[in-house]
Amino acid sequence: MQSYVEVPAREARAVAVLKGASFKVIDLEGGQVVDLFAFSTDEVREYQSAEHTRVHVKRLFPRVGEQFVTNRRRPILTFEEDTTDGVHDMLCASCDATRYAMLGVQGWHASCQENLTTAMAALGHGKVEVPQPINLFMDIPVYEDASIDWRAKKTKAGDYVRFRAEMDCIVVASACPQDLTDINNNEPSRIGIELC
Amino acid sequence: MQSYVEVPAREARAVAVLKGASFKVIDLEGGQVVDLFAFSTDEVREYQSAEHTRVHVKRLFPRVGEQFVTNRRRPILTFEEDTTDGVHDMLCASCDATRYAMLGVQGWHASCQENLTTAMAALGHGKVEVPQPINLFMDIPVYEDASIDWRAKKTKAGDYVRFRAEMDCIVVASACPQDLTDINNNEPSRIGIELC
Repeated sequence: MQSYVEVPAREARAVAVLKGASFKVIDLEGGQVVDLFAFSTDEVREYQSAEHTRVHVKRLFPRVGEQFVTNRRRPILTFEEDTTDGVHDMLCASCDATRYAMLGVQGWHASCQENLTTAMAALGHGKVEVPQPINLFMDIPVYEDASIDWRAKKTKAGDYVRFRAEMDCIVVASACPQDLTDINNNEPSRIGIELC
Repeated sequence: MQSYVEVPAREARAVAVLKGASFKVIDLEGGQVVDLFAFSTDEVREYQSAEHTRVHVKRLFPRVGEQFVTNRRRPILTFEEDTTDGVHDMLCASCDATRYAMLGVQGWHASCQENLTTAMAALGHGKVEVPQPINLFMDIPVYEDASIDWRAKKTKAGDYVRFRAEMDCIVVASACPQDLTDINNNEPSRIGIELC
């Protein structure tokens, strides 16, 4: 197993993480959103689930020390460390071809959904469900009237989050290719995955 | 097609709704949460998706006049009418056997997840994905620190919401059997589905 994987801008990589191992997701250049997914290696129909995790932690996003759970309510990741200001999102779907078409793109555009399905297909999981991602380093404020917004992120180069796997899992990290809203400061960049 | 279906307390019913038709979900006795799901009849892997709908309406929950979209970002339901104060939830997973076990239940307990899978299996869809539901009449406040809570609902007997189907769809409404938190005022009751 490689101990470090660099993910080029606009692409994704899958890594197998054994129960008890930890990994970092690193924003190498700053201001870059990462769509993170985690599937049980034994059964990819079990995966990190935003709606179950919110109920588990009674918050929109876990804090360091808390756990992300699967759609079977089993812990899959423990949030171990965060060098950022703690602002991440777990409300929004991954970008996909339709999203870009609606934003005016003609022709193909890289997307986190395609990045995920391509990475999982390469591992033999050709028809995987696309879960709602953990949107690391993504700033989606929720206002008092329940409206939400997309804001540019202030992550610094080298900022990272660290998780411990609570079961054997396949982790996919996609360096979000969104260049039509502010979330990546309009300039998608590379990220790193470090097994530690 | 029946024009009115009564759903006993703690149970669910599925109804087929054609594109352009409208239906009401009625809280017959008041203070009752309904887990509502909508699947494309043509392809049940396409279903109402909370995370895509939030992005579509830029809110935690649509307002009357707005639309719920699928995991392919296609409109599936238009929110036509709401006689309540407009408080509903789209953050929390359906209750399931594990949730009840964690709340101390020993042995079987009815759940919205089992209600959904049973209703879909009866239509020949035995391995359907369990989407995050639209939790009608459910009050989950989001506080400034991003924490969430479960509150008793103040819906009055006869309150309803009305939707128009934007594609042929299978709608499943589960009268939530949760009797261990405040959301149903600890007394699950029956609901109605009216095709109109």
